This record gives sequence, structure tokens and C-alpha cells, in this order.
Amino acid sequence: MRPTALDWSIDNCTIARAMEVLGERWTLVVLREVFNGVRRFDDMRERTNIPRQVLTNRLAMLVEQQVLRREPYREPGARLRHEYRLTDKGLDLWPVLVAILQWGDRYCADPEGSPLTTVHRGCGAELRTTLRCAAGHEVTSPRDVIPRPGPGARRRA
Amino acid sequence: MRPTALDWSIDNCTIARAMEVLGERWTLVVLREVFNGVRRFDDMRERTNIPRQVLTNRLAMLVEQQVLRREPYREPGARLRHEYRLTDKGLDLWPVLVAILQWGDRYCADPEGSPLTTVHRGCGAELRTTLRCAAGHEVTSPRDVIPRPGPGARRRA
Repeated sequence: MRPTALDWSIDNCTIARAMEVLGERWTLVVLREVFNGVRRFDDMRERTNIPRQVLTNRLAMLVEQQVLRREPYREPGARLRHEYRLTDKGLDLWPVLVAILQWGDRYCADPEGSPLTTVHRGCGAELRTTLRCAAGHEVTSPRDVIPRPGPGARRRA
Repeated sequence: MRPTALDWSIDNCTIARAMEVLGERWTLVVLREVFNGVRRFDDMRERTNIPRQVLTNRLAMLVEQQVLRREPYREPGARLRHEYRLTDKGLDLWPVLVAILQWGDRYCADPEGSPLTTVHRGCGAELRTTLRCAAGHEVTSPRDVIPRPGPGARRRA
């Protein structure tokens, strides 16, 4: 049986476009650092051992994509430098990062558990991503998620 | 001020480990296809134009990582072939995919909107990922997400 998805074009797929920004292992690692308050090139290098040129390229791409912005700072006696901060577009990646962390914790963690967790600022309780529908139901099984053509769906020629 | 994150090791980071599986643009595109019911090599090729060797490699990696499993099938008169189906580990990637789709829809969509949406099987209402804490609060601003060392956090040497 021919899958109905084959009738639809993927030219304007927003998952593919998002992955043009996020789809490289080191990119999410760089974002993890900034989300954790590590904002300076040398600090990122120290903690992650990302090759210098790779880190330079990933930061430049994330600035160009307006996920990060450069903020000048100057240590006493040193030259002007820049640190990297999340824009609103970047901050909106928290659900992506938490969803990846949650899956990684479930399937890739060492026996002692995850080295990182996220909590709610107001109450300190641990955060999770949940799938909920517009009618207010929480999705309890991934088999209850059904893909559908969206408003921008185009038939394939 | 030195970021406190620098005191903690990233050796056992589960985001980095998850990204070893997911961190390549085509990998999520392949998963999108399977989540949309496109399970056969030739159908994926037809719709995505992923280079043959790249698709072969991504599928093999996802099977090795137990995100996909191979299921044999035989069309009348043809040789035995395999299609690809999500394992439970793979199905648990729905929240990651929906979170990426949601961010992509917000920042990368064409004016007519997203070509793809996801709905709840029970009621047909559209799905979204939300961040909620263990105390039941929904996180309304990404600035209310605070990273913390988890149970497996290790001090850096």
C-alpha cells in the first residue's frame, strides 16, 4: 500500500529547515553550553574540547541565524572581547533541548543517572516535556501521535 | 564571574550522547519519513532525494542504535525486501520531533504555514510540546527554565 505521505511535497518542510540550523552534533553541544551559562569562547573550549575552528564556525552560524547574539565585554587590562547570549529565537529552543535531554537520559545515561537536569524557576521542581493537544489532553503513548498535512501542505507534482 | 557549569564534567552528558545518534541533518529527515509512514528505501529516496549512500548509512546507523528495526516484506514476483519501522526507543523520539517542528514552524515556515502538523489520535486536536514541572506548573517563559547538576553530575578534575 502506497503511503499517503508520498502525495505531499517536502519542499517547505520546517523540520528539514530547522535541522539546517540544528543538524550537527556540535551545534547542540554549543547551545547546551550557552544554556548552562557558559558564554565565552575560551570557557567553551576548556569544557568541551571542541576543535577551535569548529567552535568558531558553529558560533558564527548561530549568530547569523539569530539564535545567539554577540555581547561585548572587557576584562581589566585585556582587549575587548565578545560573549554569546541567547536571543528569543534561541531561548525558544529550550523545549528541543529538554526533549533531547529526556530521551538521552532514558536511553543513553550511565547507571548513576543524568549529569544535568532542568528545574522550574518558581518552585525548583524538575521539568519534563509533555505532548498535549489543543483540547487539553496529555498524550500518554507515542502511538497516539498522528501526522497530518498542515496549512502549508503542497501536493507533489 | 566564572560560570558554575565549568565545575562540572561533561563526560557523561546525555545531550551529547543523544546527539551522537541524532546529530546529523539527514537523520531527522529519515525519521520524519518513517514517522509519516514512509518505510521503504525506494519511497524515501523518491520523496527526499537523499543520496543513496547517505540514506543507506543513516538507516544502518538507526537500526544499529535500535531506533529502527527491519521488517521483511515481499511484493508479488519480487525478491524479499525490508522496510523500516520505529522501535519503542524510536517512537519515544516523537516529543523531540514535535519540539523541532514547533520551533521550525515558528521561525522557518513560509507565509502559508507549516506543511505538517501532528494531532491527537483520540480527538484530532493539534499537538504541542509543553514544558511542565513535577509540581504540575506549565513553564510559560523559557527564562523560567533553570539548568542544575543532575544525580550523575561529576566534578571536573
